[in-house]
Amino acid sequence: MPQPINFAERLTHFERRWSPHVIARLNDYELKLAKLEGEFVWHQHDETDEAFIVLTGALRIELHEGPVDLGPGELYVVPRGVQHRPVARGLCEVLLIEPRGLVNTGEAGGPLTNAVVDLTQR
Amino acid sequence: MPQPINFAERLTHFERRWSPHVIARLNDYELKLAKLEGEFVWHQHDETDEAFIVLTGALRIELHEGPVDLGPGELYVVPRGVQHRPVARGLCEVLLIEPRGLVNTGEAGGPLTNAVVDLTQR
Repeated sequence: MPQPINFAERLTHFERRWSPHVIARLNDYELKLAKLEGEFVWHQHDETDEAFIVLTGALRIELHEGPVDLGPGELYVVPRGVQHRPVARGLCEVLLIEPRGLVNTGEAGGPLTNAVVDLTQR
Repeated sequence: MPQPINFAERLTHFERRWSPHVIARLNDYELKLAKLEGEFVWHQHDETDEAFIVLTGALRIELHEGPVDLGPGELYVVPRGVQHRPVARGLCEVLLIEPRGLVNTGEAGGPLTNAVVDLTQR
């Protein structure tokens, strides 16, 4: 029987911060959950836009033109090529929508670069 | 200044049922809000998967292999080519993720076919 994917349930499967976990695929895109806390690195994705949807907590996405502050039920799409830095004061759980295989730190790399973990239900 | 997109705020802009409203674009994809109530038509999208995320209310997606019941914070991706029928007993507000230009009734057409409305913030 087909089953829905419950965000809260899937989020119980990991604690690691800044580590995107794929919960579903849509054509050549991935829907990923991540737990954000602290300051990420400034980076950009030259080939793609990136959607952030906040599920719990608060997220600031710093952009050179100014910050975007997101709470639960809010969305922001960072356009391709735009430098950004996600910052979460406390734990913030997000849904990300990105093309398959995107690297979380984009062009910047560094110690916060995390391999995508597959958490799809099989 | 860049602004977040708030689902609840955007949902105040329309009441029409089964009418997808684009709130953001991600590359060649659209993120759409829709208010579902009652029974839709059986249909399929031969060219694409389709993601349903329930924001409020309850949604049943009928499939030939059995129904999927979704509540708030739950996701289901209908694979391409799979016949499905969304049914909502009461009002159900959803976020849809689909390629640009998708027709809501897919191959089926009929009176519930609705033009996509652009509700992006400009």
